[in-house]
Amino acid sequence: MTSPVTESLKKYSVSIIGASGYSGAELTKLLLRHQQVQLQELYAFSQVGNSVSDIYPALGCDKVYKQYSGETESDIYFLALPHGEALQLLPSLVHAGKMVIDLSGDFRLKDPEEHKEFYKQVKSPDAVLTYGMPELYHDTILKETAISNPGCYATSIILGLAPLFHGRDRSLKVRSVNCTSTSGISGAGRSSKIELSFSEMSENIRAYKVGIHQHTPEIMQALGTSATDPSFDFSFTPMIGSLVRGIYSILNVNLENPVDAEKIMELYRSFYKHAPFVRVRDTMTEIKHVVNTNYCDVHLARVTANGSLLIVTALDNLLKGAAGQAIQNMNLMLGLDERTGLI
Amino acid sequence: MTSPVTESLKKYSVSIIGASGYSGAELTKLLLRHQQVQLQELYAFSQVGNSVSDIYPALGCDKVYKQYSGETESDIYFLALPHGEALQLLPSLVHAGKMVIDLSGDFRLKDPEEHKEFYKQVKSPDAVLTYGMPELYHDTILKETAISNPGCYATSIILGLAPLFHGRDRSLKVRSVNCTSTSGISGAGRSSKIELSFSEMSENIRAYKVGIHQHTPEIMQALGTSATDPSFDFSFTPMIGSLVRGIYSILNVNLENPVDAEKIMELYRSFYKHAPFVRVRDTMTEIKHVVNTNYCDVHLARVTANGSLLIVTALDNLLKGAAGQAIQNMNLMLGLDERTGLI
Amino acid sequence: MTSPVTESLKKYSVSIIGASGYSGAELTKLLLRHQQVQLQELYAFSQVGNSVSDIYPALGCDKVYKQYSGETESDIYFLALPHGEALQLLPSLVHAGKMVIDLSGDFRLKDPEEHKEFYKQVKSPDAVLTYGMPELYHDTILKETAISNPGCYATSIILGLAPLFHGRDRSLKVRSVNCTSTSGISGAGRSSKIELSFSEMSENIRAYKVGIHQHTPEIMQALGTSATDPSFDFSFTPMIGSLVRGIYSILNVNLENPVDAEKIMELYRSFYKHAPFVRVRDTMTEIKHVVNTNYCDVHLARVTANGSLLIVTALDNLLKGAAGQAIQNMNLMLGLDERTGLI
Amino acid sequence: MTSPVTESLKKYSVSIIGASGYSGAELTKLLLRHQQVQLQELYAFSQVGNSVSDIYPALGCDKVYKQYSGETESDIYFLALPHGEALQLLPSLVHAGKMVIDLSGDFRLKDPEEHKEFYKQVKSPDAVLTYGMPELYHDTILKETAISNPGCYATSIILGLAPLFHGRDRSLKVRSVNCTSTSGISGAGRSSKIELSFSEMSENIRAYKVGIHQHTPEIMQALGTSATDPSFDFSFTPMIGSLVRGIYSILNVNLENPVDAEKIMELYRSFYKHAPFVRVRDTMTEIKHVVNTNYCDVHLARVTANGSLLIVTALDNLLKGAAGQAIQNMNLMLGLDERTGLI
Repeated sequence: MTSPVTESLKKYSVSIIGASGYSGAELTKLLLRHQQVQLQELYAFSQVGNSVSDIYPALGCDKVYKQYSGETESDIYFLALPHGEALQLLPSLVHAGKMVIDLSGDFRLKDPEEHKEFYKQVKSPDAVLTYGMPELYHDTILKETAISNPGCYATSIILGLAPLFHGRDRSLKVRSVNCTSTSGISGAGRSSKIELSFSEMSENIRAYKVGIHQHTPEIMQALGTSATDPSFDFSFTPMIGSLVRGIYSILNVNLENPVDAEKIMELYRSFYKHAPFVRVRDTMTEIKHVVNTNYCDVHLARVTANGSLLIVTALDNLLKGAAGQAIQNMNLMLGLDERTGLI
Repeated sequence: MTSPVTESLKKYSVSIIGASGYSGAELTKLLLRHQQVQLQELYAFSQVGNSVSDIYPALGCDKVYKQYSGETESDIYFLALPHGEALQLLPSLVHAGKMVIDLSGDFRLKDPEEHKEFYKQVKSPDAVLTYGMPELYHDTILKETAISNPGCYATSIILGLAPLFHGRDRSLKVRSVNCTSTSGISGAGRSSKIELSFSEMSENIRAYKVGIHQHTPEIMQALGTSATDPSFDFSFTPMIGSLVRGIYSILNVNLENPVDAEKIMELYRSFYKHAPFVRVRDTMTEIKHVVNTNYCDVHLARVTANGSLLIVTALDNLLKGAAGQAIQNMNLMLGLDERTGLI
Repeated sequence: MTSPVTESLKKYSVSIIGASGYSGAELTKLLLRHQQVQLQELYAFSQVGNSVSDIYPALGCDKVYKQYSGETESDIYFLALPHGEALQLLPSLVHAGKMVIDLSGDFRLKDPEEHKEFYKQVKSPDAVLTYGMPELYHDTILKETAISNPGCYATSIILGLAPLFHGRDRSLKVRSVNCTSTSGISGAGRSSKIELSFSEMSENIRAYKVGIHQHTPEIMQALGTSATDPSFDFSFTPMIGSLVRGIYSILNVNLENPVDAEKIMELYRSFYKHAPFVRVRDTMTEIKHVVNTNYCDVHLARVTANGSLLIVTALDNLLKGAAGQAIQNMNLMLGLDERTGLI
Repeated sequence: MTSPVTESLKKYSVSIIGASGYSGAELTKLLLRHQQVQLQELYAFSQVGNSVSDIYPALGCDKVYKQYSGETESDIYFLALPHGEALQLLPSLVHAGKMVIDLSGDFRLKDPEEHKEFYKQVKSPDAVLTYGMPELYHDTILKETAISNPGCYATSIILGLAPLFHGRDRSLKVRSVNCTSTSGISGAGRSSKIELSFSEMSENIRAYKVGIHQHTPEIMQALGTSATDPSFDFSFTPMIGSLVRGIYSILNVNLENPVDAEKIMELYRSFYKHAPFVRVRDTMTEIKHVVNTNYCDVHLARVTANGSLLIVTALDNLLKGAAGQAIQNMNLMLGLDERTGLI
């Protein structure tokens, strides 16, 4: 089907390690469509020897999941592994000169103490990579060969708050932020837990890990503070609801100072002026507006004169919250338009 | 809350063996509300030591699941066990003079060969109990102390077809029946299989066990024929869809002879005249019409002059298809109004 | 099916005005099962002349919806009407000496200015009835013949906060409360709006009426303050998700003072000690734990020493949030056990 | 984002008339991604003046819906209109030399009597276009400038049966076919009917139009017979379930003659050997396997020696059942690879 014209494009070879989970499947889908890469190997663990066409027939892909044993033949590697495993695998890939995008939490936190507290795992202080959030670190990502892709909740919350912390208006002082996020169940991975069965989760909602979710320090770090010694009151309550995909975040912010609603709006608009995947919307957003897309919608639902803000964000946890953002990062690292293969 | 007036009613003590599955939970709910029984013990296996209030908080019940070790202190026992286990337990309960209602398939089939083929299990020819379908065997059930409660699909199909086989009109000859039934996922039990997870089953439909489902011989037996040597063409295709409860069956029947639509309607109406839980409906039925009730709706959606019938039935798989019908049987065995505790 | 024994109970005749909506249907279901009432007339508007068995076949009820034209033959009237209509109807029922429970917002707010702001409607200052929340106003309700039944969101939020405002510990000072509540779509009523269609709402979440929901002043009034001049920062963000029934509220509370977690727990336990339908739970609650019940679960998910609290509540919007609480109120007004017909 | 390389491809201008419904939205999505077309105008009716970004924000498209008033500036027109309207509009477009793909039922049936019976509408005998099912009429479509795109149920049923009717084995004689199809609710269009609301359809299933669905004659015509004078017994029962997208069809076929299972399998495989979007699968298919794709999966779940077949098909009603197949037809008519823009 490929026409002679597109044939002439430079193609990078790409492999996925941890390809059989939901994020891996989304990566597979996106990479198959991406005109400037060639999907090479799909490495998995539980599914070694099975065909993609058995596990994810909708992908229309006949590749067979392989065991990873140190191969470095591709130009680019995506790591979509359970937390802890990338810590082992990534260094040798980087050493071999490969471009690497890691979707786990292993390389996100700068503070090994925070990493230990939230991931129950020891890591060295240099196990940190540039945080792959193009809306914050665009220029740095351009120069990197290895990045750490943000968490799904973290993306939905950071993008809703970043203009207040990193925007032009240096006079804003945040006093408190309360985040309540509802995630699709695919966020828990391809899982056989009873509490994630259809019979248990249909028409249900359940909060979990209240105050202890591992994305907390990641959010705080991206906002320029820390979970251990925060510069403002912060709470984060994650929930799962009866939907497969999407994260919907309600962000209650209190500022120290009175504000002008119009200025806040303008601050958000200007902050995301060059961000193709963040849409500052005038009307309420919904999960349905972003699912199966790489967009993160941000809506300022309420700004009162005394500095109380209600911000709503929506994104697809498997795309802007995982695989889509990973592709966006790859595009930047390759010098391509960051939208390539994503719209 | 119990008033002195109702206190004076005779109360039978009842226990459930296999109480922690979905059918067990529905039995628990119904028995707690039933004014003429006292729920005594809840025996379970994986949940021994846990409280009902942890596993099924909606039941508002603080009993603790116990290990069953041969107790016979209750008047009545419900067995809601995986297939094969009632074969072991039931005889001693009957021997101890207990009233027993078994919800498994162990005692349904008269032919040990068919049992072996469909349940992959050997049983003796006398391991058979009266088939607890009140609409067919009302008078026999009245006299029994042990019965075998029908399967969920079987109930939905037999009730849709019985008037053609057991009704007044002896001239009807059935040539073929094609059954397509969609079940709620609770029919698979409280399960942790990946293919029953929310992420896999939301907005999904999947057929399974085509032509080999174990309810096939049970249906054929109740219609007066057998799966091994059927007197008419029969097929049964079970499916699960994205709903928790309910079975919706589409029954395509071809008769040998031309028929009068009005007469067929009348045949169904008269057949179920005294059946309080079968509603022969003039308009289309839906899962929503029967869920959380003990009704089985039957709608003759199409009857053509040349003898082609399209019958639609709907019931709640955990109620009329399991626990509700079991209570209905208990009521009959105790000489109570069969609706007690069910409406 | 009614036995001679229960026949001898005193029965009150009850009618519902506005019986064909979802709350009306739940009232119908509960009243049919309630042993001390006799359901008399079902008045409706759009469904006049239709049978309950056509609109809600699951109720198993053959009554026909009638037009209401001033009848006063029943002992008790439930009003489940669109906001504004009870203002017209209720006075004459009260005047005729009837017991009345109004499920609308018409008689909830004491301040006509707040009523006007949130309901866009003028009412006189005496159009106020006792607020029918048994956990707060038990003794007053016992003596009333007309009460105003609380709103669904309001119930879920007030019950989560009341011990902080009305409990024994007078030293607590609430600085701020941020509420985020997800409701089942039945809360919007039996509606044909495109944005509530299955195709739009399946796997979706949508916030609405941010900061302007009409339950806001009702909540503030019940907590002893007002929406117009609040004694603490308050925000309320309602959402609908892809579920039919239930409300799940996340309440972020900041206290002025440091607190002892154990004492807060004890405060909640003692506050609800005699409340049969509020369960203070040690573990996380879910919609599934309360749906189809009259329970409101309250879980203190997080209490930090510096006075930051995260409270989760769950209830069924059509039961404890509407029809169930209405029956509970009726029971109290009749001098019955408040649980009658509800468990 | 468009690179200079792809810019050089020949691009056809395309407009959609009836663009604001669900099929129109899918067409919009597919055409925006299709590299050899330029989406020009989106004509709608109820949404004139609104932006796509308001109605379908996920499409990421800022075009505004316009009123259609006879424009013929595009090369290609898709008509996604309510039945009856294309009959009026199409002739002038064809006359103006435009390529037209009509998604309605207006031009499908050859027999005006059948059209009248099933569509309640009179049309002239020449209001017929080539039936755009590439798997059956590939070579004819290649030469057409106007085609009639098949119905969603019809596609799912015809593709499951075609090898029996149009395959190499001329000895097969079909005696009867019973079809039971469950459709996603999007098949009913963007609708505000109460019976399609989330509260009514969640966890529900409902059959409708039993024996009278308008796709019946279309299916019979494609199989070489007619609804009026069929050469075999045929029944079709459509249902909607609690899912947005997808059609799952269970086809019970009885052949006159004994058959060899292996040969039937081979017949299907060879029939679809060159059809890129029909997958004859060895294992059970599910809605999830095809949703958001243009595939139609066909699985021979059971073939008995005496000629009884059970065939399961799955497709996405908005893609292979509507917009996807329409693009596939456009590709063929344009001489492109039929997969362009679809995988």
